[in-house]
Amino acid sequence: LSNVTSQTEQAPKASRKQRSDGERARKTILTAAVALATADGIEGLTIGHLAAASGMSKSGLYAHFGSKVELQLATVEEAAAVFDAEVVLPALAAPEGLDQLIIFCEGYFAHIARGGVPSGCFFAGAALELGAKPGPVKERVAAFQSSLIDHLRTFVTAAKQRGDLPETEETDTLAFEIGGFLLNGNTNFVLFGDPRALDVARKVVRRRLGLDPA
Amino acid sequence: LSNVTSQTEQAPKASRKQRSDGERARKTILTAAVALATADGIEGLTIGHLAAASGMSKSGLYAHFGSKVELQLATVEEAAAVFDAEVVLPALAAPEGLDQLIIFCEGYFAHIARGGVPSGCFFAGAALELGAKPGPVKERVAAFQSSLIDHLRTFVTAAKQRGDLPETEETDTLAFEIGGFLLNGNTNFVLFGDPRALDVARKVVRRRLGLDPA
Repeated sequence: LSNVTSQTEQAPKASRKQRSDGERARKTILTAAVALATADGIEGLTIGHLAAASGMSKSGLYAHFGSKVELQLATVEEAAAVFDAEVVLPALAAPEGLDQLIIFCEGYFAHIARGGVPSGCFFAGAALELGAKPGPVKERVAAFQSSLIDHLRTFVTAAKQRGDLPETEETDTLAFEIGGFLLNGNTNFVLFGDPRALDVARKVVRRRLGLDPA
Repeated sequence: LSNVTSQTEQAPKASRKQRSDGERARKTILTAAVALATADGIEGLTIGHLAAASGMSKSGLYAHFGSKVELQLATVEEAAAVFDAEVVLPALAAPEGLDQLIIFCEGYFAHIARGGVPSGCFFAGAALELGAKPGPVKERVAAFQSSLIDHLRTFVTAAKQRGDLPETEETDTLAFEIGGFLLNGNTNFVLFGDPRALDVARKVVRRRLGLDPA
């Protein structure tokens, strides 16, 4: 979103129509960029590759993104916006506590399933890919991942306070465990190309939280 | 190992000295290749990149590996051999049951720590990277990952039979949970560049198996 804002600031004389056309084109490009980066990695996301994959001209893409890093950062923002819309916001909107945990996890599995075999989770892939590549893109991915861990901790804390989970549960431990179930579900989905991997993960989550695994 | 065998078969007249020099050179190359692929991904592992990273000539590398896929497959075999030596074999050599589970997990964390921040686990990275790239390299990675899951299941089954773990533990569920803890420890280690991520994961594993988390 910060990129949209700064672009708008750079072009204060653009009419509302021009601006909304530009924003629509930008959104179309970024949707293609997230799909490409999820499949081929974020380092493979050059303007040349995106032009080939999206059928847009390189010069058209350069009008939106001045550099590879700018394109990568905008792609991470778009992936984060989709993840927030599909996973985080529905959980935040749910009743505090166990409901939030369940809705977050169910939302995550649905988010992966929606991408189809074998795309998987953009952020899980980006985390491992960017390990050896320090810089603003890795920092942004790490910050998003940290925010997800914080959400899980907050949901666990609320669930304990409401009595949905035993007080003996350690918040950090349970948040880590659940994060691991999500990552393992994603890895099996991607590697074995099998949507049933998500059902297995879903059952493990529900059982761990003391719910009927069905 | 199958590649070493076939290479030897192709050169039956080579003296023992020549053969062992060749094997040593091959081993040196593959050690560099595993490090490079762990950092940059297995798709970035071309003969040109490996030549630049290892300081060897392209023609010298072509003498060992005729193609990119052959190099990638040999690299996966080398990574599997290291993983087996450091993680799987010590667990298989331990007393059956809970000891095997613990030694497998401790071996995994030590294996990651040995690679230094932020390399992480070759196979966890390869699994996500190769999702959208069907072919023999992905198949080999998936087969190795399946064998690891099988080991975890076998260890859990033995632990239940020996009474180390309650009979109410579901074998597949517990194996999946532990796999998730390993993956989450690896992801945090790589993304946040922090070896303490492995201590957190180690404690979660021990606690889950009913042991003192220290």
